[in-house]
Amino acid sequence: MELLTTNNVWMMICTALVFFMHLGFAFLEIGLTRQKNTINILFKNIFIITMGLLLYCLVGFNLMYPGDFNGFLGFAGFGLDAPMADGALDLAYNGGYTYWTDFLFQGMFAATAATIVSGAVAERMKIGPFMIFTVIYVGLIYPIAGSWKWGGGFLDKLGFYDFAGSTLVHSVGGWAALVAVCLLGARIGKYKDGKPQAIPGHNIPLATAGVLILWLGWFGFNGGSVLSADPELTSLVLVTTCLAAAAGGVVAAIASTVMYKNLDLTMFLNGILGGLVGITAGADVMSPTNAIIIGAIAGLLIVFAVSFIDKLKLDDPVGAIAVHLVCGIWGTLAVGIFGFSALTNDAGEFLNASGSVVATSSEAANSLSFLPQLYGVLAYAGFCIISSFVIIFILKKTVGIRVSEKEELEGLDAHEHGMDAYPDFRLNER
Amino acid sequence: MELLTTNNVWMMICTALVFFMHLGFAFLEIGLTRQKNTINILFKNIFIITMGLLLYCLVGFNLMYPGDFNGFLGFAGFGLDAPMADGALDLAYNGGYTYWTDFLFQGMFAATAATIVSGAVAERMKIGPFMIFTVIYVGLIYPIAGSWKWGGGFLDKLGFYDFAGSTLVHSVGGWAALVAVCLLGARIGKYKDGKPQAIPGHNIPLATAGVLILWLGWFGFNGGSVLSADPELTSLVLVTTCLAAAAGGVVAAIASTVMYKNLDLTMFLNGILGGLVGITAGADVMSPTNAIIIGAIAGLLIVFAVSFIDKLKLDDPVGAIAVHLVCGIWGTLAVGIFGFSALTNDAGEFLNASGSVVATSSEAANSLSFLPQLYGVLAYAGFCIISSFVIIFILKKTVGIRVSEKEELEGLDAHEHGMDAYPDFRLNER
Amino acid sequence: MELLTTNNVWMMICTALVFFMHLGFAFLEIGLTRQKNTINILFKNIFIITMGLLLYCLVGFNLMYPGDFNGFLGFAGFGLDAPMADGALDLAYNGGYTYWTDFLFQGMFAATAATIVSGAVAERMKIGPFMIFTVIYVGLIYPIAGSWKWGGGFLDKLGFYDFAGSTLVHSVGGWAALVAVCLLGARIGKYKDGKPQAIPGHNIPLATAGVLILWLGWFGFNGGSVLSADPELTSLVLVTTCLAAAAGGVVAAIASTVMYKNLDLTMFLNGILGGLVGITAGADVMSPTNAIIIGAIAGLLIVFAVSFIDKLKLDDPVGAIAVHLVCGIWGTLAVGIFGFSALTNDAGEFLNASGSVVATSSEAANSLSFLPQLYGVLAYAGFCIISSFVIIFILKKTVGIRVSEKEELEGLDAHEHGMDAYPDFRLNER
Repeated sequence: MELLTTNNVWMMICTALVFFMHLGFAFLEIGLTRQKNTINILFKNIFIITMGLLLYCLVGFNLMYPGDFNGFLGFAGFGLDAPMADGALDLAYNGGYTYWTDFLFQGMFAATAATIVSGAVAERMKIGPFMIFTVIYVGLIYPIAGSWKWGGGFLDKLGFYDFAGSTLVHSVGGWAALVAVCLLGARIGKYKDGKPQAIPGHNIPLATAGVLILWLGWFGFNGGSVLSADPELTSLVLVTTCLAAAAGGVVAAIASTVMYKNLDLTMFLNGILGGLVGITAGADVMSPTNAIIIGAIAGLLIVFAVSFIDKLKLDDPVGAIAVHLVCGIWGTLAVGIFGFSALTNDAGEFLNASGSVVATSSEAANSLSFLPQLYGVLAYAGFCIISSFVIIFILKKTVGIRVSEKEELEGLDAHEHGMDAYPDFRLNER
Repeated sequence: MELLTTNNVWMMICTALVFFMHLGFAFLEIGLTRQKNTINILFKNIFIITMGLLLYCLVGFNLMYPGDFNGFLGFAGFGLDAPMADGALDLAYNGGYTYWTDFLFQGMFAATAATIVSGAVAERMKIGPFMIFTVIYVGLIYPIAGSWKWGGGFLDKLGFYDFAGSTLVHSVGGWAALVAVCLLGARIGKYKDGKPQAIPGHNIPLATAGVLILWLGWFGFNGGSVLSADPELTSLVLVTTCLAAAAGGVVAAIASTVMYKNLDLTMFLNGILGGLVGITAGADVMSPTNAIIIGAIAGLLIVFAVSFIDKLKLDDPVGAIAVHLVCGIWGTLAVGIFGFSALTNDAGEFLNASGSVVATSSEAANSLSFLPQLYGVLAYAGFCIISSFVIIFILKKTVGIRVSEKEELEGLDAHEHGMDAYPDFRLNER
Repeated sequence: MELLTTNNVWMMICTALVFFMHLGFAFLEIGLTRQKNTINILFKNIFIITMGLLLYCLVGFNLMYPGDFNGFLGFAGFGLDAPMADGALDLAYNGGYTYWTDFLFQGMFAATAATIVSGAVAERMKIGPFMIFTVIYVGLIYPIAGSWKWGGGFLDKLGFYDFAGSTLVHSVGGWAALVAVCLLGARIGKYKDGKPQAIPGHNIPLATAGVLILWLGWFGFNGGSVLSADPELTSLVLVTTCLAAAAGGVVAAIASTVMYKNLDLTMFLNGILGGLVGITAGADVMSPTNAIIIGAIAGLLIVFAVSFIDKLKLDDPVGAIAVHLVCGIWGTLAVGIFGFSALTNDAGEFLNASGSVVATSSEAANSLSFLPQLYGVLAYAGFCIISSFVIIFILKKTVGIRVSEKEELEGLDAHEHGMDAYPDFRLNER
């Protein structure tokens, strides 16, 4: 009972921290875009967290955790239904925390996928179609995709490992971001004579605050994914998470300084996020050293991916594809490369976070090989690309997904919301 | 001992979250008002939390929890006095957490009532009289009012139920806000030819951040009002709180879009706050479905109340009366309407959060009827209206409560504080 | 096991809160300086937290906690090395929480010292030398200094007491800030005809938010310094911390109003920080009343110190020296003055937070006298002044520490980072 209470307290705190990430996403997205689209972005983010929770309550939770199912699609019914045992609530539910906490923690995760897309399509997508997309993606696609691993589906049985969602959350959002950006096209003025132009964000202090809030939220995102307050595992997870974030940031800052002769704060910030996304798949099984390596590689990837995506004429205002998709894939594969490296003893055997031997090195290589990770990445790529393409393509051909040129130039705030974000400040036109 | 430690950890975290709400209130209030009064609002909010804590230490805590008393007014003495048992601190105090935590958690609540008033009187009230009002209201009125229910006073004995303060905190602040607005009058320019004019807030990103911070803080405000870390109750409370917030926001957004053909972010935000205030009185006894209904109705109420209050020529710059008073009353009455609906078993009996039968439906109707809730609402209405009227009326007739026309037009920052909030930005005059 | 889990949960939360302080410092520092140096300040702060964590992992942690050592300098080896017992992780490590948590909590502290310096040198120091200074100060100086008390070194054996770092963190940063300011010189325009000119900060809402975030972070900074979730001690610490903050703010506001006939928000905010720094050395051993007195004196000190430092032509844009050095010294000495005053029983004996008798009053005076506190202050003064002087003086004579006049006038953002913090806002030149 005491342990249940403590586990539940930890999980509730982590839930609160993941909730708070939505302020981080909002700050990051408005900070890295222009002032004239600020209200629109805030509206989208507020819509995602509120509607996301309601949808996850209505259908998502029971799609994602359907109980026994065929491994691809299952549904346990509408709404919440607390499990009972002997006429009282089943306190042994999930062995660590309550049904209510479970729902809320997972619900906070669900909204994240749509938030990732929001950043990539910022400044030019119509809000109506975006809201429709959000409803379908958060309400149906994310939970079905999630069920394949966290609901005990076919990828779980294949040995695919994704601790807190480098793939299940970040790539799932990242693939849809990629598809949406392809179907939307670039913002007016982003490419001149075929060359990408910088469109600087309008409020870098808020963007920076967004990244620090997201980092704080990751204490809950990864720490809560232990699904208990197990002292060794939770604290190891926080250490690997923070070290990967730090390494990602520092390496991205160094790389971009070398390449562009400029101390680029935005790259520093995206490097931190890349490190966080990269460690997420294996935060509970990495040694601190490997966490630093994974984060550092994520930081490098960010610098090259942002530039490469730009050259492909994929206009992603906040770098969401580089951060969430590229580093999400990297983090997932990294688990297959580094394996359960958190701890080894003098005999070279692999230990889990509690110090008991998991495997000798050869067994570890067998039990957690690279291939299941690759299968997972590919399965999610296929499902997410196809489903988001179908949704957004239908929206494009029916109601349209892009605002008019006039609206884009004058800003979505004035046209879709009739509001200014900062009416007291004199503003430059961009 | 382990359980005490865990309970205490949870209560301390909740205390920290409620403290953080003061940043949420400050951001919301400056965001929804004009740049020229920003310093003044920040000063008021910082004054409220600092002076509020000192006053609650000196007199408030012992006024609110006087021990055995006549049910209307009692006082246990000045300052803090930790209870002892057998020569050591009494660890069984309150059966769940320490005396120190109890004081600090309640102290964070106390300052909230004055903060609500701060928003309603923004941009035109003299800061001196506001500070005097704060001292009296936080130091005397709020604790006396609180003692009637949470201190075991006459309303508690009548069967009045208010879990976390829809009435005891939000309406207590809301009534004073209403009285203050009546006595102050509207801002210059708010009404032209008898018609209300929109005076948009100057920093919507900070207002949005304020609402998300307040929502985060409500995890502690409601979660901590369980007064222990009871896993079922705390997690149920977080679920009902978040679902009501989400429903309030979505319904307010829909209603205002239907009425005004505009995706109104401010209404979305106030709908969230309305849902939060609405669920606060019964967050521990509602089912998720009823929480959504209560939040949705609160969202509707917000849209109509904001418009109605505007038409009454009551100028409330941040919508504090609609959010805290109207939804506070609604939430309190809703407990009488929905009763203990959190859980029912197959036999239709009502269960508490731990799953044991509280009452059959008819008994429940008897034990928690609508009338005690109505008595509570009326008792607080009477006490708060009269006491805040007396305080503010005396201030008005002596030192005056309203700044000069010149000061109002040029902004309170320049006149009361000699500071600009944003000296590097070129500003529009409003 | 249950208690270990709870202790560890508390320590992880405190770690997260101390991490979040870095957003508080960033907001405070950019808020109190000019817009043209905003990117530079954010870059520095992001650098400090990321590089600080990596350095603390590589060398700092093992320099600060070297195990048995000569009392002045010791080193337990590079990198992290979780202690094992019987083939598993040693769960009894530190008797309260895990090795991983210990590292991360202390790592978050380590970065704080450099952050203090960052504020004092803002708007005119070259970023390259600042980063070099940070690496040495966070990587070497801070951990060595810390080992003298918290690592069990010679000051610990002398009876020096510093609960959470009024000296070990705040003065260590404050002395370096003082040295750096002396070597750097004042900003252009700060003194005209020998008289200090006000250079107001450009974003007071963010500065205010920074202070409230720092206060929130102090729940973890002081609360976590208990190094367990002991209910009495942690909750007493939160009460003394909050009351000192409140008293510091209110007294500073009153004093500056009396002196300057102006309700000065900046002084109010710095008073809060002064109260927080002041209580930090003895937050676990003070009674609430003494906490209020200590905070109030810190608030007074702030008002006079800010003015005095200004007159000495030491240009400290954010008041870091007054807050962290002056109040850090005050708080450390206050422990020697007030002693273990948290609780006394009817016989006048001194109790610890758990209620057992620590000492009669005369014994208490003997066991915790003023002199060890003074020795500690002087030892850190000597070490920090000398080491920071050597580092910064060498930097000054080699690469130079001050930006060019042109760069200072046009802003560091344009020259060092090629970025604007707010490209959409029309800005005043300052």
